[in-house]
Amino acid sequence: MKIEGRNAVLELLKTDKDIDKIMLLKGADGSLGRIFALARGKNVRVQFADARLLDKESETGRCQGVIAFVSEYAYADFSELCAPKAGPRLLVLCDGVEDVHNLGSILRVAECAGADGVIIPKNKSAQVTGAAVRISEGAASHIKVARVPGINYAVDELKKRGFWVYALEADGEDIYASDLTGDIALVVGGENSGVSPLTKKKCDKVLSLPLAGKVNSLNASVALGIAVYEAVRQRR
Amino acid sequence: MKIEGRNAVLELLKTDKDIDKIMLLKGADGSLGRIFALARGKNVRVQFADARLLDKESETGRCQGVIAFVSEYAYADFSELCAPKAGPRLLVLCDGVEDVHNLGSILRVAECAGADGVIIPKNKSAQVTGAAVRISEGAASHIKVARVPGINYAVDELKKRGFWVYALEADGEDIYASDLTGDIALVVGGENSGVSPLTKKKCDKVLSLPLAGKVNSLNASVALGIAVYEAVRQRR
Repeated sequence: MKIEGRNAVLELLKTDKDIDKIMLLKGADGSLGRIFALARGKNVRVQFADARLLDKESETGRCQGVIAFVSEYAYADFSELCAPKAGPRLLVLCDGVEDVHNLGSILRVAECAGADGVIIPKNKSAQVTGAAVRISEGAASHIKVARVPGINYAVDELKKRGFWVYALEADGEDIYASDLTGDIALVVGGENSGVSPLTKKKCDKVLSLPLAGKVNSLNASVALGIAVYEAVRQRR
Repeated sequence: MKIEGRNAVLELLKTDKDIDKIMLLKGADGSLGRIFALARGKNVRVQFADARLLDKESETGRCQGVIAFVSEYAYADFSELCAPKAGPRLLVLCDGVEDVHNLGSILRVAECAGADGVIIPKNKSAQVTGAAVRISEGAASHIKVARVPGINYAVDELKKRGFWVYALEADGEDIYASDLTGDIALVVGGENSGVSPLTKKKCDKVLSLPLAGKVNSLNASVALGIAVYEAVRQRR
Protein backbone atom coordinates (compact mmCIF):
# COMPACT_ATOMS: atom_id res chain seq x y z
CA MET A 1 0.00 0.00 0.00
CA LYS A 2 1.19 3.54 -0.72
CA ILE A 3 0.69 6.24 1.87
CA GLU A 4 0.94 9.70 0.37
CA GLY A 5 1.06 13.25 1.67
CA ARG A 6 3.19 14.98 4.29
CA ASN A 7 0.94 14.69 7.34
CA ALA A 8 -0.03 11.10 6.54
CA VAL A 9 3.63 10.02 6.28
CA LEU A 10 4.67 12.06 9.35
CA GLU A 11 1.96 10.35 11.41
CA LEU A 12 2.99 6.97 10.01
CA LEU A 13 6.59 7.59 11.13
CA LYS A 14 5.35 8.22 14.68
CA THR A 15 3.98 4.65 14.87
CA ASP A 16 5.97 1.42 15.07
CA LYS A 17 4.56 0.19 11.75
CA ASP A 18 6.99 -1.35 9.26
CA ILE A 19 7.82 0.91 6.32
CA ASP A 20 9.41 -0.70 3.28
CA LYS A 21 10.64 2.52 1.70
CA ILE A 22 9.96 6.25 1.52
CA MET A 23 10.17 8.03 -1.82
CA LEU A 24 11.01 11.70 -1.29
CA LEU A 25 11.24 14.70 -3.59
CA LYS A 26 14.86 15.67 -4.33
CA GLY A 27 16.08 18.77 -2.49
CA ALA A 28 13.51 18.30 0.26
CA ASP A 29 13.32 20.93 2.97
CA GLY A 30 10.65 22.08 5.46
CA SER A 31 8.33 19.25 6.44
CA LEU A 32 9.89 16.97 3.80
CA GLY A 33 13.25 17.55 5.51
CA ARG A 34 11.64 16.57 8.81
CA ILE A 35 10.33 13.39 7.21
CA PHE A 36 13.84 12.61 5.95
CA ALA A 37 15.34 13.12 9.41
CA LEU A 38 12.69 10.93 11.09
CA ALA A 39 13.06 8.21 8.45
CA ARG A 40 16.85 8.18 8.87
CA GLY A 41 16.47 8.02 12.64
CA LYS A 42 14.31 4.90 12.22
CA ASN A 43 16.57 3.31 9.60
CA VAL A 44 13.86 3.49 6.95
CA ARG A 45 15.19 3.37 3.40
CA VAL A 46 14.75 6.73 1.64
CA GLN A 47 14.78 7.00 -2.14
CA PHE A 48 15.06 10.47 -3.63
CA ALA A 49 13.03 11.04 -6.78
CA ASP A 50 12.12 13.88 -9.11
CA ALA A 51 8.59 15.25 -9.40
CA ARG A 52 7.93 13.24 -12.56
CA LEU A 53 8.66 9.88 -10.91
CA LEU A 54 6.63 10.82 -7.82
CA ASP A 55 3.69 11.76 -10.03
CA LYS A 56 4.00 8.43 -11.78
CA GLU A 57 4.02 6.47 -8.50
CA SER A 58 1.24 8.54 -6.87
CA GLU A 59 -2.19 6.91 -6.68
CA THR A 60 -3.97 9.97 -5.33
CA GLY A 61 -2.38 12.56 -7.60
CA ARG A 62 -1.66 14.65 -4.50
CA CYS A 63 1.39 13.12 -2.86
CA GLN A 64 2.97 16.46 -1.81
CA GLY A 65 6.47 15.16 -2.57
CA VAL A 66 6.38 12.03 -0.44
CA ILE A 67 5.14 8.44 -0.77
CA ALA A 68 5.67 5.72 1.85
CA PHE A 69 5.50 2.07 0.78
CA VAL A 70 4.07 -0.18 3.48
CA SER A 71 2.43 -3.58 3.77
CA GLU A 72 -1.34 -3.67 3.51
CA TYR A 73 -3.25 -1.88 6.25
CA ALA A 74 -3.22 -3.95 9.44
CA TYR A 75 -6.79 -4.20 10.64
CA ALA A 76 -7.42 -4.81 14.33
CA ASP A 77 -9.53 -7.64 15.76
CA PHE A 78 -13.13 -6.83 16.51
CA SER A 79 -12.77 -8.27 20.02
CA GLU A 80 -9.70 -6.10 20.63
CA LEU A 81 -11.76 -2.96 19.90
CA CYS A 82 -14.53 -3.83 22.29
CA ALA A 83 -12.36 -5.14 25.12
CA PRO A 84 -13.25 -3.75 28.57
CA LYS A 85 -11.11 -0.83 29.73
CA ALA A 86 -10.83 1.59 32.63
CA GLY A 87 -13.14 4.37 31.35
CA PRO A 88 -16.28 4.17 29.24
CA ARG A 89 -15.78 2.75 25.73
CA LEU A 90 -16.63 4.62 22.53
CA LEU A 91 -16.81 2.97 19.12
CA VAL A 92 -17.88 4.12 15.66
CA LEU A 93 -19.63 1.83 13.16
CA CYS A 94 -19.83 2.69 9.48
CA ASP A 95 -22.91 1.38 7.68
CA GLY A 96 -22.48 1.69 3.93
CA VAL A 97 -19.85 4.43 3.87
CA GLU A 98 -18.63 3.81 0.31
CA ASP A 99 -16.76 7.06 -0.33
CA VAL A 100 -13.11 6.77 0.67
CA HIS A 101 -13.05 10.52 1.43
CA ASN A 102 -15.87 10.10 3.93
CA LEU A 103 -14.16 7.11 5.54
CA GLY A 104 -10.89 9.05 5.82
CA SER A 105 -12.73 11.99 7.46
CA ILE A 106 -14.53 9.63 9.84
CA LEU A 107 -11.21 8.06 10.92
CA ARG A 108 -9.78 11.53 11.55
CA VAL A 109 -12.75 12.64 13.67
CA ALA A 110 -12.82 9.37 15.63
CA GLU A 111 -9.10 9.60 16.36
CA CYS A 112 -9.25 13.26 17.46
CA ALA A 113 -12.17 12.53 19.80
CA GLY A 114 -10.28 9.64 21.38
CA ALA A 115 -12.64 6.88 20.23
CA ASP A 116 -11.47 3.30 20.83
CA GLY A 117 -11.90 2.29 17.22
CA VAL A 118 -13.91 2.22 14.02
CA ILE A 119 -15.76 -0.83 12.65
CA ILE A 120 -16.44 -1.25 8.95
CA PRO A 121 -18.08 -4.09 7.01
CA LYS A 122 -15.97 -6.12 4.58
CA ASN A 123 -18.40 -5.55 1.72
CA LYS A 124 -20.22 -2.53 0.30
CA SER A 125 -17.93 -0.22 2.23
CA ALA A 126 -14.85 1.89 1.56
CA GLN A 127 -11.75 0.12 2.95
CA VAL A 128 -8.64 1.66 4.53
CA THR A 129 -6.70 2.31 1.33
CA GLY A 130 -3.75 4.65 0.90
CA ALA A 131 -6.19 7.38 -0.15
CA ALA A 132 -8.21 6.93 3.06
CA VAL A 133 -4.99 7.20 5.08
CA ARG A 134 -4.01 10.41 3.28
CA ILE A 135 -7.45 11.98 3.77
CA SER A 136 -7.39 11.01 7.46
CA GLU A 137 -4.20 13.12 7.75
CA GLY A 138 -2.53 10.07 9.20
CA ALA A 139 -5.18 9.32 11.84
CA ALA A 140 -5.69 5.91 10.22
CA SER A 141 -2.18 4.96 11.38
CA HIS A 142 -3.17 5.54 15.02
CA ILE A 143 -6.81 4.54 15.39
CA LYS A 144 -7.82 0.87 15.36
CA VAL A 145 -10.07 -0.25 12.53
CA ALA A 146 -11.75 -3.67 12.56
CA ARG A 147 -13.65 -5.36 9.76
CA VAL A 148 -16.76 -7.43 10.32
CA PRO A 149 -18.81 -9.64 7.97
CA GLY A 150 -21.76 -7.25 8.37
CA ILE A 151 -22.82 -4.30 10.53
CA ASN A 152 -25.85 -6.13 11.96
CA TYR A 153 -23.54 -8.83 13.28
CA ALA A 154 -21.43 -6.14 14.96
CA VAL A 155 -24.49 -4.47 16.50
CA ASP A 156 -25.64 -7.78 18.03
CA GLU A 157 -22.17 -8.58 19.34
CA LEU A 158 -21.68 -5.11 20.84
CA LYS A 159 -25.02 -5.30 22.64
CA LYS A 160 -24.00 -8.67 24.09
CA ARG A 161 -20.79 -7.07 25.31
CA GLY A 162 -22.56 -4.30 27.18
CA PHE A 163 -22.57 -1.47 24.65
CA TRP A 164 -25.47 0.88 23.97
CA VAL A 165 -25.66 1.06 20.20
CA TYR A 166 -27.11 4.27 18.73
CA ALA A 167 -27.80 5.04 15.07
CA LEU A 168 -27.28 8.63 13.94
CA GLU A 169 -30.21 9.53 11.72
CA ALA A 170 -32.67 12.34 11.12
CA ASP A 171 -35.81 10.81 12.66
CA GLY A 172 -34.68 9.90 16.16
CA GLU A 173 -34.52 11.24 19.69
CA ASP A 174 -32.77 14.49 20.58
CA ILE A 175 -29.08 13.70 21.09
CA TYR A 176 -28.77 16.47 23.67
CA ALA A 177 -31.39 14.79 25.86
CA SER A 178 -29.55 11.45 25.68
CA ASP A 179 -27.03 10.02 28.10
CA LEU A 180 -23.79 9.26 26.24
CA THR A 181 -21.63 8.60 29.28
CA GLY A 182 -21.69 4.78 29.22
CA ASP A 183 -20.15 2.29 26.80
CA ILE A 184 -21.55 3.40 23.46
CA ALA A 185 -21.21 2.64 19.77
CA LEU A 186 -22.43 5.21 17.24
CA VAL A 187 -23.60 3.98 13.83
CA VAL A 188 -23.07 6.45 11.00
CA GLY A 189 -24.69 5.87 7.60
CA GLY A 190 -23.33 6.11 4.09
CA GLU A 191 -23.62 8.81 1.47
CA ASN A 192 -26.60 7.36 -0.31
CA SER A 193 -29.09 5.85 2.02
CA GLY A 194 -27.88 6.48 5.57
CA VAL A 195 -28.20 3.77 8.23
CA SER A 196 -30.17 0.83 6.81
CA PRO A 197 -33.68 0.17 8.20
CA LEU A 198 -32.76 -3.23 9.69
CA THR A 199 -29.68 -1.83 11.42
CA LYS A 200 -31.71 1.08 12.81
CA LYS A 201 -34.22 -1.41 14.21
CA LYS A 202 -31.45 -3.41 15.90
CA CYS A 203 -29.99 -0.32 17.56
CA ASP A 204 -31.02 0.63 21.09
CA LYS A 205 -32.01 4.10 19.92
CA VAL A 206 -31.85 6.44 16.95
CA LEU A 207 -30.27 9.79 17.86
CA SER A 208 -30.72 13.02 15.91
CA LEU A 209 -29.07 16.39 15.74
CA PRO A 210 -31.34 19.42 15.59
CA LEU A 211 -31.50 20.82 12.04
CA ALA A 212 -32.53 24.45 11.86
CA GLY A 213 -32.04 25.10 8.16
CA LYS A 214 -33.74 24.06 4.96
CA VAL A 215 -31.10 21.56 3.86
CA ASN A 216 -31.99 18.51 5.89
CA SER A 217 -28.74 16.66 6.31
CA LEU A 218 -25.19 17.07 7.48
CA ASN A 219 -22.22 15.32 5.92
CA ALA A 220 -21.55 11.97 7.64
CA SER A 221 -18.19 12.94 9.15
CA VAL A 222 -19.52 16.31 10.38
CA ALA A 223 -22.57 14.67 11.99
CA LEU A 224 -20.31 12.07 13.58
CA GLY A 225 -17.96 14.82 14.80
CA ILE A 226 -20.81 16.65 16.53
CA ALA A 227 -22.11 13.42 18.08
CA VAL A 228 -18.78 12.03 19.33
CA TYR A 229 -17.84 15.40 20.77
CA GLU A 230 -21.18 15.54 22.59
CA ALA A 231 -20.13 12.20 24.14
CA VAL A 232 -16.70 13.68 24.97
CA ARG A 233 -18.38 16.72 26.60
CA GLN A 234 -20.72 14.59 28.68
CA ARG A 235 -17.91 12.32 29.86
CA ARG A 236 -15.72 15.11 31.24
CA MET B 1 -22.91 30.40 -12.96
CA LYS B 2 -23.66 26.70 -13.29
CA ILE B 3 -25.17 24.83 -10.37
CA GLU B 4 -24.74 21.08 -10.70
CA GLY B 5 -25.98 18.01 -8.88
CA ARG B 6 -29.42 16.82 -7.85
CA ASN B 7 -29.58 18.12 -4.27
CA ALA B 8 -28.00 21.45 -5.21
CA VAL B 9 -30.56 22.06 -7.99
CA LEU B 10 -33.48 20.81 -5.86
CA GLU B 11 -32.53 23.26 -3.10
CA LEU B 12 -32.14 26.03 -5.68
CA LEU B 13 -35.67 25.37 -6.95
CA LYS B 14 -37.01 25.84 -3.41
CA THR B 15 -35.74 29.44 -3.37
CA ASP B 16 -37.11 32.39 -5.33
CA LYS B 17 -33.80 32.84 -7.21
CA ASP B 18 -33.98 33.42 -10.96
CA ILE B 19 -32.97 30.40 -13.02
CA ASP B 20 -32.15 30.98 -16.69
CA LYS B 21 -32.38 27.36 -17.74
CA ILE B 22 -32.08 23.80 -16.45
CA MET B 23 -30.31 21.20 -18.56
CA LEU B 24 -31.63 17.73 -17.73
CA LEU B 25 -30.62 14.21 -18.77
CA LYS B 26 -33.04 12.74 -21.32
CA GLY B 27 -35.42 10.12 -19.95
CA ALA B 28 -35.14 11.55 -16.45
CA ASP B 29 -36.93 9.75 -13.64
CA GLY B 30 -36.54 9.55 -9.85
CA SER B 31 -35.13 12.75 -8.38
CA LEU B 32 -34.47 14.11 -11.89
CA GLY B 33 -38.18 13.69 -12.61
CA ARG B 34 -38.93 15.65 -9.44
CA ILE B 35 -36.62 18.41 -10.62
CA PHE B 36 -38.45 18.47 -13.97
CA ALA B 37 -41.86 18.76 -12.25
CA LEU B 38 -40.64 21.55 -9.93
CA ALA B 39 -39.04 23.43 -12.82
CA ARG B 40 -42.20 23.19 -14.91
CA GLY B 41 -44.27 24.38 -11.96
CA LYS B 42 -42.07 27.48 -11.74
CA ASN B 43 -41.99 28.09 -15.50
CA VAL B 44 -38.26 27.48 -15.68
CA ARG B 45 -37.04 26.54 -19.13
CA VAL B 46 -35.90 22.90 -19.27
CA GLN B 47 -33.57 21.64 -21.98
CA PHE B 48 -33.16 17.88 -22.33
CA ALA B 49 -29.66 16.72 -23.20
CA ASP B 50 -27.76 13.49 -23.57
CA ALA B 51 -24.99 12.44 -21.19
CA ARG B 52 -22.30 13.61 -23.62
CA LEU B 53 -23.58 17.20 -23.76
CA LEU B 54 -24.06 17.31 -19.98
CA ASP B 55 -20.49 16.12 -19.49
CA LYS B 56 -19.31 18.83 -21.84
CA GLU B 57 -21.21 21.56 -19.98
CA SER B 58 -20.29 20.28 -16.49
CA GLU B 59 -17.63 22.24 -14.63
CA THR B 60 -17.38 19.84 -11.70
CA GLY B 61 -17.42 16.59 -13.68
CA ARG B 62 -20.12 15.31 -11.30
CA CYS B 63 -23.36 16.92 -12.44
CA GLN B 64 -25.55 13.82 -11.79
CA GLY B 65 -27.63 14.53 -14.89
CA VAL B 66 -28.62 18.11 -14.11
CA ILE B 67 -27.13 21.58 -14.52
CA ALA B 68 -28.93 24.83 -13.66
CA PHE B 69 -27.80 28.07 -15.30
CA VAL B 70 -28.20 31.08 -13.03
CA SER B 71 -26.82 34.59 -12.69
CA GLU B 72 -23.73 35.01 -10.53
CA TYR B 73 -24.15 34.19 -6.84
CA ALA B 74 -25.98 37.02 -5.08
CA TYR B 75 -23.95 37.91 -2.02
CA ALA B 76 -25.73 39.54 0.92
CA ASP B 77 -24.72 42.82 2.54
CA PHE B 78 -22.49 42.60 5.56
CA SER B 79 -24.85 44.88 7.53
CA GLU B 80 -27.79 42.65 6.64
CA LEU B 81 -26.05 39.66 8.21
CA CYS B 82 -25.31 41.40 11.47
CA ALA B 83 -28.64 43.20 11.84
CA PRO B 84 -30.26 42.84 15.30
CA LYS B 85 -32.91 40.14 15.58
CA ALA B 86 -35.18 38.56 18.19
CA GLY B 87 -32.86 35.79 19.43
CA PRO B 88 -29.08 35.72 19.80
CA ARG B 89 -27.15 36.10 16.55
CA LEU B 90 -24.66 33.55 15.23
CA LEU B 91 -22.21 34.24 12.40
CA VAL B 92 -19.32 32.35 10.85
CA LEU B 93 -16.19 34.05 9.51
CA CYS B 94 -13.80 32.27 7.17
CA ASP B 95 -10.17 33.34 7.44
CA GLY B 96 -8.19 32.02 4.49
CA VAL B 97 -10.44 29.10 3.53
CA GLU B 98 -9.08 28.66 0.00
CA ASP B 99 -10.43 25.19 -0.79
CA VAL B 100 -13.84 25.36 -2.42
CA HIS B 101 -14.71 21.96 -0.90
CA ASN B 102 -14.08 23.29 2.58
CA LEU B 103 -16.13 26.43 1.89
CA GLY B 104 -19.02 24.32 0.55
CA SER B 105 -18.91 22.12 3.68
CA ILE B 106 -18.78 25.19 5.93
CA LEU B 107 -21.87 26.66 4.22
CA ARG B 108 -23.71 23.35 4.70
CA VAL B 109 -22.85 23.14 8.40
CA ALA B 110 -23.71 26.80 9.03
CA GLU B 111 -27.08 26.41 7.30
CA CYS B 112 -27.99 23.21 9.16
CA ALA B 113 -27.13 24.80 12.51
CA GLY B 114 -29.31 27.82 11.71
CA ALA B 115 -26.50 30.40 11.63
CA ASP B 116 -27.43 33.87 10.38
CA GLY B 117 -24.74 33.93 7.74
CA VAL B 118 -21.18 33.35 6.65
CA ILE B 119 -18.61 36.08 6.00
CA ILE B 120 -15.71 35.57 3.59
CA PRO B 121 -12.96 37.94 2.46
CA LYS B 122 -12.87 39.05 -1.18
CA ASN B 123 -9.26 37.98 -1.59
CA LYS B 124 -7.26 34.89 -0.69
CA SER B 125 -10.46 32.94 -0.10
CA ALA B 126 -12.61 30.46 -1.97
CA GLN B 127 -15.70 32.22 -3.38
CA VAL B 128 -19.24 30.86 -3.76
CA THR B 129 -18.78 29.20 -7.16
CA GLY B 130 -21.01 26.56 -8.70
CA ALA B 131 -18.72 23.90 -7.21
CA ALA B 132 -19.14 25.36 -3.71
CA VAL B 133 -22.93 25.33 -4.19
CA ARG B 134 -22.84 21.67 -5.27
CA ILE B 135 -20.65 20.63 -2.34
CA SER B 136 -22.92 22.52 0.06
CA GLU B 137 -25.77 20.26 -1.18
CA GLY B 138 -27.68 23.43 -1.97
CA ALA B 139 -27.23 25.09 1.43
CA ALA B 140 -25.50 27.99 -0.34
CA SER B 141 -28.84 28.87 -1.94
CA HIS B 142 -30.42 29.36 1.49
CA ILE B 143 -27.75 30.78 3.79
CA LYS B 144 -26.60 34.39 3.43
CA VAL B 145 -22.98 34.94 2.49
CA ALA B 146 -21.38 38.39 2.66
CA ARG B 147 -18.00 39.46 1.35
CA VAL B 148 -15.74 41.89 3.16
CA PRO B 149 -12.48 43.58 2.14
CA GLY B 150 -10.68 41.70 4.93
CA ILE B 151 -11.50 39.54 7.95
CA ASN B 152 -9.88 41.96 10.40
CA TYR B 153 -12.23 44.70 9.22
CA ALA B 154 -15.17 42.34 9.83
CA VAL B 155 -13.93 41.44 13.32
CA ASP B 156 -13.69 45.13 14.29
CA GLU B 157 -17.11 45.91 12.86
CA LEU B 158 -18.76 42.94 14.57
CA LYS B 159 -17.27 43.90 17.94
CA LYS B 160 -18.66 47.44 17.46
CA ARG B 161 -22.07 45.90 16.76
CA GLY B 162 -22.13 43.91 19.98
CA PHE B 163 -20.80 40.53 18.89
CA TRP B 164 -18.36 38.39 20.83
CA VAL B 165 -15.86 37.22 18.25
CA TYR B 166 -14.13 33.90 18.93
CA ALA B 167 -11.38 32.27 16.89
CA LEU B 168 -11.40 28.47 16.68
CA GLU B 169 -7.83 27.31 17.15
CA ALA B 170 -5.84 24.68 18.99
CA ASP B 171 -4.21 26.87 21.65
CA GLY B 172 -7.19 28.54 23.29
CA GLU B 173 -9.66 28.19 26.14
CA ASP B 174 -11.87 25.12 26.54
CA ILE B 175 -14.97 25.65 24.39
CA TYR B 176 -17.10 23.64 26.83
CA ALA B 177 -16.29 26.09 29.62
CA SER B 178 -17.27 29.07 27.44
CA ASP B 179 -20.60 30.85 27.26
CA LEU B 180 -21.87 30.78 23.66
CA THR B 181 -25.39 32.01 24.35
CA GLY B 182 -24.95 35.65 23.33
CA ASP B 183 -24.38 37.26 19.93
CA ILE B 184 -21.31 35.45 18.66
CA ALA B 185 -19.18 35.17 15.55
CA LEU B 186 -16.89 32.15 15.15
CA VAL B 187 -13.74 32.55 13.06
CA VAL B 188 -12.60 29.38 11.31
CA GLY B 189 -9.17 29.20 9.68
CA GLY B 190 -8.04 27.92 6.33
CA GLU B 191 -6.43 24.66 5.32
CA ASN B 192 -2.86 25.85 5.49
CA SER B 193 -2.26 28.18 8.36
CA GLY B 194 -5.47 28.40 10.37
CA VAL B 195 -6.66 31.72 11.78
CA SER B 196 -3.96 34.36 11.19
CA PRO B 197 -2.07 35.70 14.25
CA LEU B 198 -3.39 39.26 13.86
CA THR B 199 -6.99 38.08 13.57
CA LYS B 200 -6.56 35.85 16.63
CA LYS B 201 -5.26 38.84 18.56
CA LYS B 202 -8.27 40.94 17.54
CA CYS B 203 -10.74 38.26 18.66
CA ASP B 204 -12.25 38.38 22.14
CA LYS B 205 -11.07 34.84 22.82
CA VAL B 206 -9.54 31.81 21.18
CA LEU B 207 -11.65 28.68 21.74
CA SER B 208 -10.40 25.11 21.44
CA LEU B 209 -11.89 21.66 21.17
CA PRO B 210 -10.33 18.92 23.29
CA LEU B 211 -8.11 16.67 21.16
CA ALA B 212 -7.55 13.23 22.63
CA GLY B 213 -5.69 11.58 19.77
CA LYS B 214 -2.27 11.88 18.23
CA VAL B 215 -3.36 13.75 15.11
CA ASN B 216 -3.64 17.29 16.33
CA SER B 217 -6.25 18.87 14.14
CA LEU B 218 -9.76 18.45 12.86
CA ASN B 219 -10.92 19.43 9.40
CA ALA B 220 -12.20 23.05 9.34
CA SER B 221 -15.83 22.19 8.60
CA VAL B 222 -15.90 19.41 11.22
CA ALA B 223 -14.39 21.70 13.89
CA LEU B 224 -16.89 24.39 12.94
CA GLY B 225 -19.74 21.87 13.09
CA ILE B 226 -18.80 20.83 16.63
CA ALA B 227 -18.45 24.46 17.72
CA VAL B 228 -21.69 25.82 16.18
CA TYR B 229 -23.64 22.86 17.55
CA GLU B 230 -22.21 23.53 21.01
CA ALA B 231 -23.66 27.04 20.60
CA VAL B 232 -26.98 25.51 19.44
CA ARG B 233 -27.00 23.20 22.49
CA GLN B 234 -26.29 26.01 24.94
CA ARG B 235 -29.00 28.23 23.42
CA ARG B 236 -31.82 25.69 23.80
